[in-house]
Amino acid sequence: MKINIAILGSTGSIGENILDIVRKDKKNLKVVLLTANKNYKKLIKQAKEFKVKNILIYNDKYYEFLKVKLKDRKINIFSRKTKLNIILKKKVDYTICGISGLSGLKPTLDVIKLTKTIASANKESIICGWNLIMKKLKKYNTKFIPIDSEHFSIWNLTKEYSNDDIEEIILTASGGPLLNSPIKIQKTITPEKAVRHPNWKMGKKISVDSANLMNKIFEIIEANRMFNFDLDKYKILIHPQSYVHTIIKFKNGLIKMLLHDTNMKIPIFNSIYDNKIKYISSKKINSKTLNNLNFYEVDKLKFPSIKLLKKISKENTLYDTVITIANDELVKLFLQNKISLRQVVENLTKIINLKEYKKYYSKKPTSLDEIYKVSELVRLKTNRISV
Amino acid sequence: MKINIAILGSTGSIGENILDIVRKDKKNLKVVLLTANKNYKKLIKQAKEFKVKNILIYNDKYYEFLKVKLKDRKINIFSRKTKLNIILKKKVDYTICGISGLSGLKPTLDVIKLTKTIASANKESIICGWNLIMKKLKKYNTKFIPIDSEHFSIWNLTKEYSNDDIEEIILTASGGPLLNSPIKIQKTITPEKAVRHPNWKMGKKISVDSANLMNKIFEIIEANRMFNFDLDKYKILIHPQSYVHTIIKFKNGLIKMLLHDTNMKIPIFNSIYDNKIKYISSKKINSKTLNNLNFYEVDKLKFPSIKLLKKISKENTLYDTVITIANDELVKLFLQNKISLRQVVENLTKIINLKEYKKYYSKKPTSLDEIYKVSELVRLKTNRISV
Repeated sequence: MKINIAILGSTGSIGENILDIVRKDKKNLKVVLLTANKNYKKLIKQAKEFKVKNILIYNDKYYEFLKVKLKDRKINIFSRKTKLNIILKKKVDYTICGISGLSGLKPTLDVIKLTKTIASANKESIICGWNLIMKKLKKYNTKFIPIDSEHFSIWNLTKEYSNDDIEEIILTASGGPLLNSPIKIQKTITPEKAVRHPNWKMGKKISVDSANLMNKIFEIIEANRMFNFDLDKYKILIHPQSYVHTIIKFKNGLIKMLLHDTNMKIPIFNSIYDNKIKYISSKKINSKTLNNLNFYEVDKLKFPSIKLLKKISKENTLYDTVITIANDELVKLFLQNKISLRQVVENLTKIINLKEYKKYYSKKPTSLDEIYKVSELVRLKTNRISV
Repeated sequence: MKINIAILGSTGSIGENILDIVRKDKKNLKVVLLTANKNYKKLIKQAKEFKVKNILIYNDKYYEFLKVKLKDRKINIFSRKTKLNIILKKKVDYTICGISGLSGLKPTLDVIKLTKTIASANKESIICGWNLIMKKLKKYNTKFIPIDSEHFSIWNLTKEYSNDDIEEIILTASGGPLLNSPIKIQKTITPEKAVRHPNWKMGKKISVDSANLMNKIFEIIEANRMFNFDLDKYKILIHPQSYVHTIIKFKNGLIKMLLHDTNMKIPIFNSIYDNKIKYISSKKINSKTLNNLNFYEVDKLKFPSIKLLKKISKENTLYDTVITIANDELVKLFLQNKISLRQVVENLTKIINLKEYKKYYSKKPTSLDEIYKVSELVRLKTNRISV
């Protein structure tokens, strides 16, 4: 039996990675659904290459267009108006969410009942909506696998363990492009330079988050929600080579590290085959690489974002939406040259400290609408305060 | 229910380590048997402190002596003539073998049917007699846990995996006290200096094996027998800090490292509680320590022992006894100042290449006597050739 795969957001980098995995194992893997926001050209190309029966485009502008372009093909074309359970009649084996930003949350929630496993690296959705995701996972007995390298590593190393078994969890951070630059650069650096990540090819938003270490703050929030290990067990170490993804110290004195090439394909690949070990081509262990690994404490003056760890609530609340969305907007403003990189965390700290947001600190999200509502308020406020 | 523990060789460093663990968890651990070779004073002290009902001394000279010394105590004192099944009426939960050298093999084989789990770091016995050990383990459904840090690490990281899942297994070697010395020192170094191991407090024999890397050759043989992973998957890297004990690359692109303080107590501790995670005090993860880890390829000119890896048979045969015993004798000769450290491996290479030993290369050991017989022949020959 082939593994049936649905890909939410197939035209992004995660979508391309998983399709490349499918390309190499067509015998065992079959794509049954592709979705995209607006990149209809790539969507058509993918649907043809992988003989996918169902495609869905979220942006209405391209829906009719797709219909015309593919009219001679036996491909079902859907718009965002079609519910996923109309397309997927029975549970698929595996769904991957390659959508970025909070717009991934609704598709994620919708697909949980329609898939046996969901793999996701959709940070914003996990952070803002974990309570909603978790409830649905339980209700529909769906397995969740994080595919961000750090979370995949924690998941892989802690499968059999509980909070009481674990002493420390280290997430490594590359330190981004500004690790070795003086602090003052953060006031003048252009968006073009700030997004040049040394190790990973990533989108602009996440590259900015990486340049000021916000990415790692979000990863700790995400990990804490997902894994039920106490927040104060998490720590960040700067590790410029991005080869070691997590280091876990167990209470029994053993320390385990998980390493893999800086290639998203490895966690994605392993999330599909789950417990089975299948072969993927990757670099051999190299003593020169191992011999030159560095680990440093985070410089708090250079990366003041690390202080935000103390502001995080102990479980998923609407306050997570405040932090996520305020940061989202501030990064946009930086990318539009309206504020400096340094101001992103400065303003973020101001905004999340606003009295009006305190009420969200202990309020668990109970619906998508609630999250959207808070996010809209925070977007407006962030812009008003910052520009 | 307390975990009942038998300690074979309780007066050595492994015995002391496990007794210290028992000392800290008397609520859950109970020692039911102590054995020693001749250190009767320490044996008496241990028996009294841990209120052990049964003690056995291998060296007959001290048997009567012990009887007198302990005549007012309710302690059963046995000599080597008493079979273990007379002492242990039903299976104990856990036995640890802290005896070094080939003399550990008989007690190991004898105890397998009398224990649910046996933990051992008795390299020579495992290497020479694995076939015999393995058969008994199967017959009596006894679990074997290696407690040498490297083997414990491989065991821990590969529990659920088979040969096909694994691409590479790296054993780390400290490089011993001569890592950074010129090769010619190996011709003149005194035994006193050669046994000064930089990281581990160990016996003289194993310290010499560490100084010329023979220890690591034996560890690879041992691992290969124990774990059923192909011999050519093993590799040695020099890692002077002895903090990382093994590095395993799986075929799925993931690399796992196991680290712990350079303290035998950690693997021993974990072998007792097995899958349960119990707390043991150990150093926190330290970025400075991680930042200064080194890994190098082995210098074949400095450590010609590494070439012996090509001479090893693919499964446990009597040839393992030839290598083990020849090395054993050569180390004795070095410790007696009769040959140089450099000559240990030089002579070892000559001896194992002797035509008369070729017949053992594919001959599996079928009895203890067979191993003893070969070992006696090799002892004589090694001395005759070397001195």
